[in-house]
Parts: sequence; structure tokens; C-alpha cells
Amino acid sequence: MRLGTVCYEGCERVVADLGNDRMLDLHLAAEHARENEAFYVDMLSVIHGGEGALALARSLVENAQEAATLLAEEITFCPPILPVQYRDCLVFETHLKNSFAQAEKMTGRPFAIPPVWYDQPIYYKGNRMSFVGHGQDVIWPGYAQHLDVELELAIIIGKKGKDIPASDAAGYFFGYSILNDVSARDAQMIEMPGQLGPAKGKDFDTGNVLGPWIVTRDEVPHPAALDMELFVNGERWGGGNSSQMHHDFARIIEHISASETLYPGEVIGSGTVGTGCGLEIGKRLQPGDRFDLTIEKIGTLSNRIVKP
Amino acid sequence: MRLGTVCYEGCERVVADLGNDRMLDLHLAAEHARENEAFYVDMLSVIHGGEGALALARSLVENAQEAATLLAEEITFCPPILPVQYRDCLVFETHLKNSFAQAEKMTGRPFAIPPVWYDQPIYYKGNRMSFVGHGQDVIWPGYAQHLDVELELAIIIGKKGKDIPASDAAGYFFGYSILNDVSARDAQMIEMPGQLGPAKGKDFDTGNVLGPWIVTRDEVPHPAALDMELFVNGERWGGGNSSQMHHDFARIIEHISASETLYPGEVIGSGTVGTGCGLEIGKRLQPGDRFDLTIEKIGTLSNRIVKP
Repeated sequence: MRLGTVCYEGCERVVADLGNDRMLDLHLAAEHARENEAFYVDMLSVIHGGEGALALARSLVENAQEAATLLAEEITFCPPILPVQYRDCLVFETHLKNSFAQAEKMTGRPFAIPPVWYDQPIYYKGNRMSFVGHGQDVIWPGYAQHLDVELELAIIIGKKGKDIPASDAAGYFFGYSILNDVSARDAQMIEMPGQLGPAKGKDFDTGNVLGPWIVTRDEVPHPAALDMELFVNGERWGGGNSSQMHHDFARIIEHISASETLYPGEVIGSGTVGTGCGLEIGKRLQPGDRFDLTIEKIGTLSNRIVKP
Repeated sequence: MRLGTVCYEGCERVVADLGNDRMLDLHLAAEHARENEAFYVDMLSVIHGGEGALALARSLVENAQEAATLLAEEITFCPPILPVQYRDCLVFETHLKNSFAQAEKMTGRPFAIPPVWYDQPIYYKGNRMSFVGHGQDVIWPGYAQHLDVELELAIIIGKKGKDIPASDAAGYFFGYSILNDVSARDAQMIEMPGQLGPAKGKDFDTGNVLGPWIVTRDEVPHPAALDMELFVNGERWGGGNSSQMHHDFARIIEHISASETLYPGEVIGSGTVGTGCGLEIGKRLQPGDRFDLTIEKIGTLSNRIVKP
């Protein structure tokens, strides 16, 4: 199932994709069916609703009524969820090698992959409040000159847990989505020597894009092996496959959840797939650029960047 | 005014300190006074309630009735707020110099303060879901051997804003609190070469302690010049004064809010005051240790660490 959050007549609605640019308003559909509409107040309610909420949603989709159906032309996409917390990893070796080679050119400082990278899925925590959805404009931050996109696979956590072994981790996935970790490379290069990780290089309004859909985990075999491709203004910049993750999401969850509770609704990004950003190939965004991030079985996340 | 969140008879209550180990249950007091008790559902409601919520709270405190008064012995402290987002800065030069000297000894790698540190209040985003309050036990994370405390001043954001000049920033403070950024130094040393900032070195359940109170900004002149002291098992480990912040909170807010919205309920830590942690002075925690973090005008935040 493909679940999303859309804005329709000024209100946010949780929807399931019906295909052919049609989607089911799950709250309305449950109400009409005299079923538990409280499952569908927002995406977090769906996640907390667990298998019951998903089973009912499937049945509502199978019996979709016209009266609860929305058309793509009537809605705009929001981020599918306001993340309870947002972390971003860095698990594609090609991305790191390419980026470091470019960073050396840009800064004159040497960069080498540290041994810890091979041992641990290192991550940072990003701004959970700056997400936008498919089709919403990314706003060029005033302090930056060098903007870039990053193509990532994301998972959404479905169940509370702690000290989760990698062998059990797939049971904690709620679903998958596409993440665009928009980055201000000049700000990032300046602050990274501070050793606290990226801050204003990633933190600005509209700097994280998620969607259009969350695809429930039953539709994606684990570990994920999905083609990923990045297009800017229709030109293919690069891409790869999620099987190239040096640490897969099960290992990531094992690492993060050590002595630490993971909560339903947390979002974790894979980090950029190799050649999934402009930095690696010596390109940068221009105002007005449009980008399409495609992941096999998940969909296409499309936005443009505008300079105010 | 000193505002807190406490657990009483299994429920969380927003309270105002009345002194002498007594506190006013603001929701109950407002209900009795037939005033707007919705201001006091939780701390975020108080913040969203703005000057109206604070003015009413002051009047309720002035006319405190016995029937809405709780005694310290009847309650346990929770973190005063679940942060909407949590960032932590690093603005005390002495802390950085001392820590780097120790890190050189521990790792054999050279550390030097990067020039960007003097230009920008660098920060990372921490785990907003792992906070505990005054008096609650800190749980030793299973993967770590070397635990430490960090004494920090924190502000809580009171008003939504973006592109806030330093000269206006004080108007966005809701209040101040004491932050203990408990750290697993061994995990931190291992992951920091990954250049994404601290992760498991800071991220574990109970790894952030905030409280006991949020002291509203009217009680603390800006910029803050408050004595800060750290005691472990009654022994003074170190301390300093918040006037030693190389970037004050106004400059921090200016930096963070560039092209980025700050939301009511966000929490920002100053970073550790010089000698405000064990690392700097070659000490480490042992299971069962008790620590008291005192900041002038704000209070004392006391906890112990236990190894399961």
C-alpha cells in the first residue's frame, strides 16, 4: 500500500494511492464504512494503529467509494509525516569517495574515509521541522550560494523498540519513502571543521523533502535492492541501487537502538546513493531547477528550487 | 517565575514553584479560579499561551490556594518540556581547549580549535526523546565504559521566528533551564572521526537531563552572567560563568534562525562551561555517582547514574 498526506480544501488528509491519479481519503472512507476513523487522523495515528489500521485501510481501498476519492488535481502533497525524530546516515561508499575528492578540490584540505565508517553506520540528526512534500517549492536559503540535492532511501519506524538485533529489525519498519536532503554546500564546507556535523549546511526551511508516498514494508523485500536515479531538469545526473548500502537498515537500527528507544514515526535516511548528488559530479543547482528523484517500487519525488 | 512539569498521582502537571518545597498545580488552580485552564495542559501550552498564560499564572501564584498546592514529597520531577527540537552548541573556549588536550592524550590524534569556532556558534542536534528530569536516574548505556556529565545553561524558545537579528533575539526566549548532556566518551571518541558529530556518544535513553525548573526570562538579565558549578558526590569538579560564552544566546539564535524557522518549545544548550565536565579534569563517572549541577538564579539539577 502507498500512503500519503495531502492538503485538500485547506485540511490535511491521510490518503491511500488508488492509481491513475486517484487516492482514497481514509478518514472519510472509514467514516462512511462506520469503521474506526481515528486510525486516520494523521500518519502517526496510522502507525500507532498498527496492523489493525493497515488491514482496515486495505479493505477500504478494495471497496473504494467514489464519495471518498480525491483526484491528484484537487490536492497538493504534504510531507507524508512530521518525523518524531529525523536521522540521516551515510552508508554509500561511492558517495563518500566522490564527495571527499570534490571537497579536497574545493577546500585544499585532505579527506580520507575514516575506519569507523566501515564499522558503524554513522549518522547525524537533522531538522525534523523543515520538511516539505512532493511538488512543494524548495526555497533557496539566503546565506548560501552553492545548493545541491541528495537522493536517499528513507525508512519510517513503525514500532517502539530498544536494543533491537539486526535479525529482528525488519519488523520495526513501517515503510519506505524517498528523501531529498537538500544541502547548502558552501555553508556545510565552512562548518564541518567544527566537528559537530552538518548544521546550517542542511538546516533551513524546506531543506528536507519526503514523499510522495510511504510504501508499506510488505511491498519491499528486505534488504532493499532498489534502483535509484536522480534527474535535474530532465537530465540524468546519476544513481545506483540501495543494495550498495555498506550497512543496511537492519544494521542501522541495531546501531541506533543500542540502549536507546526508537519510536514510531521516526524517519531514518540512508545517506546519498553514489552519484546521487551534484557535488560528486561537479554540478550545482541554479534557481528554478527542477529535480526528480526516482526509486524503484517507491515512486518519484519531484520539486523545484526557487530563489526569493 | 519558576515553572516545571511534575508527576503527581500518575499524571503530569504543570506547576509553578511557590518556594519552601511547595508548588502550585496551575491547571487545577485555573480551574478553581474559573480561568482558562487550557493554558496549562502541558508546558508547550503555556508557551503557546504567551503573555496571557504567564500573567494568569502569576496571578494564580499570588493567590495560591491550599487545594491546588502540591508538596515536593508528593511529586517526582519530569523534564519541564518535551523539546520540539533540541540543539546543543559549544561556545565555551576553555571547555574546548581542555577537552581537546584530553582527547589528544586518549587518541594520540592532534586536536586544534578550528577558525570557524570563533566565527559561528557551531551546534549539533540531539535526541529530543531521551530527556529525563531532576531526580530521575540516568541509566548507564550498555555499550559504554566511560561516562561523563556536562554542565550547560539552556534556553527554551518562546516564539516562532526566522531571520532573527541578535538585537531582537532576547524577545524569543521563553526561559532558562539547566542541562546535563550526559556523554559516553568512549563511544564519542570512536565516532567523531566520521565527521557527522556526536551520535551514540550522546544518544541513549536518559542521556539528556533538563530542569528542575524553567525560569522565565524576566528573571534573568540578558546576556546571562550566571555562576555555574558542578559537584559529583558532593565534591566540586569545576565551573565558570555563563558570561564566558564566546557567542551568547542572541548570536546563537541569529545563526540558527537564518532562513530557518525556530518554533516555540525548542531547546538550545550552551555547550559545557569550562571545567564543567569530568573529561577536562581527567575524571570519569562510576556507577552510583550523584551529581549536582548548579546555576545561579536557575537552581540545582541533581541526579545519579545507575548501571543496570
